[in-house]
Amino acid sequence: MDHLIEKTLAKKEIFKGRVIDLQVEEVQLPNGKTSTREVIKHPGAVAVIALTADHKLVMVKQYRKAMDRVLVEIPAGKLEKGEEPIVTAKRELEEETGYTCKELKHIISFYTSPGFADELVHLYTAEKLEVMETKASLDEDEFVEVIETSIEEALQMIQTNEIYDAKTAYAVQYLQLRSALGE
Amino acid sequence: MDHLIEKTLAKKEIFKGRVIDLQVEEVQLPNGKTSTREVIKHPGAVAVIALTADHKLVMVKQYRKAMDRVLVEIPAGKLEKGEEPIVTAKRELEEETGYTCKELKHIISFYTSPGFADELVHLYTAEKLEVMETKASLDEDEFVEVIETSIEEALQMIQTNEIYDAKTAYAVQYLQLRSALGE
Repeated sequence: MDHLIEKTLAKKEIFKGRVIDLQVEEVQLPNGKTSTREVIKHPGAVAVIALTADHKLVMVKQYRKAMDRVLVEIPAGKLEKGEEPIVTAKRELEEETGYTCKELKHIISFYTSPGFADELVHLYTAEKLEVMETKASLDEDEFVEVIETSIEEALQMIQTNEIYDAKTAYAVQYLQLRSALGE
Repeated sequence: MDHLIEKTLAKKEIFKGRVIDLQVEEVQLPNGKTSTREVIKHPGAVAVIALTADHKLVMVKQYRKAMDRVLVEIPAGKLEKGEEPIVTAKRELEEETGYTCKELKHIISFYTSPGFADELVHLYTAEKLEVMETKASLDEDEFVEVIETSIEEALQMIQTNEIYDAKTAYAVQYLQLRSALGE
């Protein structure tokens, strides 16, 4: 697939932030011409499909500045440097929901916005949740509200755009598929 | 849900690009403290679950600079200013694959990376594809290779990380679900 590759001729660091970095690359296209690519570097993230013992999906309401609105999302968070994704996933589950789980299972990883960013999300399931005796603390700039819904309620929230993000839509569809397959 | 909202105190434009803009906002958190948020502004995008008459899924191989690798994705593209998403979807389908379709159906829209970007992807199905007599041209800096696979082959490509992005994983799972429901 070498005929598709774009070779970087020059790279300019525009911004180094708390969460993301931005660089602009001058590239040589497969036809020899040049163009520019705007690239966001992100540390990667985890997300958890968390199910209570009575099969409710645990999600969090969280304000998102990029859209200036509150979204309902499955528990998620950025990877810390050097931390195994499954460790981050368990920590985020505990911090955001107050539940814990003996065994998380990896189901899929995917890039969220390959056209401009390298954010890779690792998605896990956490079943038979147990309430933590001592609730873990959130990051100091993080504020969330926990909700628990049935799959049917979650589907309704997709219709009303309360659930409005890719990883959570994937999670709800995953549960629909599992139910359809009788698993 | 006012208790979750972060009020913007100041906004700094860092970068205005061809595809994305970056701004950093100083915000007041729900507890009165301040923090910063890094926000990517994106025009939004469309993606198409395109199925041939013999039920093959049409995808494109495309080099992605952010990951420095070739990914297999469903046809997709950025919204042009003032263009209806369904019009963009038909245009991208035609330009990237050489197929056209009488009727596209909207199935879901979702934010891809709500933690740092406002990119909203509108997802459509296009069925009973017809080969175009005159192939539409790609953007001058776009190079893709078209492939057609069964659902089983697409699932295999998820295992091998050739399919490695959220919208395409969602699309494959959508087809699995439809098949499981006998639709």
